[in-house]
Amino acid sequence: MPVYRLDLAWRGDGFAGWQVQPGQPTVQGAIEQALSRVCGGAPASVRAAGRTDAGVHAAHQVAAAEVAVARPVEALHRGLLALLPPAVSVLDVQVAPEDFDPRAWSLEKHYRYRILTRRPRCPFRDGLVLHHPHRIDVERMARAAQDAVGRHDFSAFRAVGCGAAHAVRTIVAAQVSAAGDEVHIDVHGNGFLRHQVRILAGTLLEVGEGRRGVDAVQQAIHARDRAAAGPTAPAHGLWLMRAAVGAGPRAGARPRTDEPPDDDG
Amino acid sequence: MPVYRLDLAWRGDGFAGWQVQPGQPTVQGAIEQALSRVCGGAPASVRAAGRTDAGVHAAHQVAAAEVAVARPVEALHRGLLALLPPAVSVLDVQVAPEDFDPRAWSLEKHYRYRILTRRPRCPFRDGLVLHHPHRIDVERMARAAQDAVGRHDFSAFRAVGCGAAHAVRTIVAAQVSAAGDEVHIDVHGNGFLRHQVRILAGTLLEVGEGRRGVDAVQQAIHARDRAAAGPTAPAHGLWLMRAAVGAGPRAGARPRTDEPPDDDG
Repeated sequence: MPVYRLDLAWRGDGFAGWQVQPGQPTVQGAIEQALSRVCGGAPASVRAAGRTDAGVHAAHQVAAAEVAVARPVEALHRGLLALLPPAVSVLDVQVAPEDFDPRAWSLEKHYRYRILTRRPRCPFRDGLVLHHPHRIDVERMARAAQDAVGRHDFSAFRAVGCGAAHAVRTIVAAQVSAAGDEVHIDVHGNGFLRHQVRILAGTLLEVGEGRRGVDAVQQAIHARDRAAAGPTAPAHGLWLMRAAVGAGPRAGARPRTDEPPDDDG
Repeated sequence: MPVYRLDLAWRGDGFAGWQVQPGQPTVQGAIEQALSRVCGGAPASVRAAGRTDAGVHAAHQVAAAEVAVARPVEALHRGLLALLPPAVSVLDVQVAPEDFDPRAWSLEKHYRYRILTRRPRCPFRDGLVLHHPHRIDVERMARAAQDAVGRHDFSAFRAVGCGAAHAVRTIVAAQVSAAGDEVHIDVHGNGFLRHQVRILAGTLLEVGEGRRGVDAVQQAIHARDRAAAGPTAPAHGLWLMRAAVGAGPRAGARPRTDEPPDDDG
C-alpha cells in the first residue's frame, strides 16, 4: 500500500487527543476520515510519532499515512486542507518508503510548556498558554529542571493509569527561560510517559513560586512516587513543538507491533 | 463622575464591532455591562479612541470609563477581568482626569493588516490573519503603499455608507514588509474612514499579485471613486495595534460632542 509522510499541526482544544477513541473527536480520526474521502472512500490509516493527550497542541508532528490507492501528493495535500477543520493543518505531504514508521524512526521530540505570567490575560493566546498571573522565579525553575536531564526512573512523573511497561526515560535537555511575557519550559527527549512533561511543569511552577525547594525534581525522581512530585499542569499550556524523524529506524527502536506504545507529554 | 482610563485588547471574531448596537454583542456593550456590575449596578459608559468594525482585532485600544461611583483601580481591574469573556482583556486601569477624552486626545493609531502567504493554514492564527496562499510581491506593494502617505482625499478608500463629513485624511506612514511567513501592511495615522485600511489592503494585495500596477493607489486617490480601488480585505486580518493617547487634547481636535465621529479601519 502506498505510504505518505504527513507533517501536521493542530490546536488541541477541540480534540480528545491524537488517538482514535469511539464517539470522541480525535486528530487521528479526523485525518483518517479526510484521507479516506480524498481517496474516494478507500480505507486509510494514520500513525504518528507519538500520541498526545486531549487539549495538547502540536506545532509540528509527523505521521505516516497508508492508503489503499496511490494519489499525487499535491492532490492529497489540497484535499486534506479542504476537508479538515481549521484547527488541523497539513504542513506538508511527501511520498514515504513503505516501511516508514514515524515512531521507530523518531529521533527526538521537543515539548514546550507555555506560561503567561503577566496579570491581564491575552485574548489571542486564550487556550494556548497557561495563564498564571503570579511572580515566578525563572532562575530557580531553570536550576531545578536540570535535575530532570539524563536517564532516570520517572515513576514520580507518570500519570496514574499510564500504560508503559516501565518508567525509565531519557531527557536530553530541560530549559526554563523567560520569553517576553511568557515563561517557557522546553524539554527534549524521545519517548515520554503519560503526563511526564505536565507533571514536570507543575512541579517546576511550585519551585518558581517558592513552595518547593530547588531540589524538588531530584527529590521526586529519588522518591519514585507520584505523590512526591507537583500537580499535573493543565493540558492547554503544552505544545509538541517538533517531532524530529530520521531516514530510518533509530538504534534500539522497538518495531511498531510492540504494544502499548508510550503516551506523550 | 469618576473617570478611568482603560487599556484594552480583544479578539474581534465574536463581536459586531466596538460600538453598542441593539441586540448585538459588542465590545463596548460587554465592557459597560461588566463595569456596571462591578459598580453594584450603577450606570457606566465607555468611550474609545475610535470605533472598530465587526471582526477587527485590537491589540491595544484606549477607552475612558465613566462610572457613577468611585472604585479603587485594583478592584475595577480585577472585577472587569473576572466578568468579561476571554476574548476581551483589560491590560490596565488608571484614574483619569475628568475631561479625559481618548478620541480628542488621540495622537496616532497604528493599524496592521496581517496576511499569511504560506500554503498551509495555521491552526493557531485561524481568524487572526488573512490566509492568502499565493505568491505576492512585497516590494511592489511597499512602493504602491507609499502613495497613500500624506494628506489626501480618500474617497476611493471609503466604505459605501461611511458617515464621515468629508474624506480628507492624513496617513503618516504606510509600510509593507515580510515578517516570517506573514506579510504585514502597517498604516499609521489619526482618524481613518470606514474600511479605509481594509480597502488599501485589498488594493495592495492586487498590486502584489500583479493584477494592478504599482501606481494603483495613486490612481485610485486621484479618481476619488470607490470603484477605482480594490476590494475590501476581510475584517479578520485587521488589527488595531495601538492607539497612542496623549496627556491632553491634540491641536485642532474636535470636542466630543461633534457627530458623527470617524469609523476606524
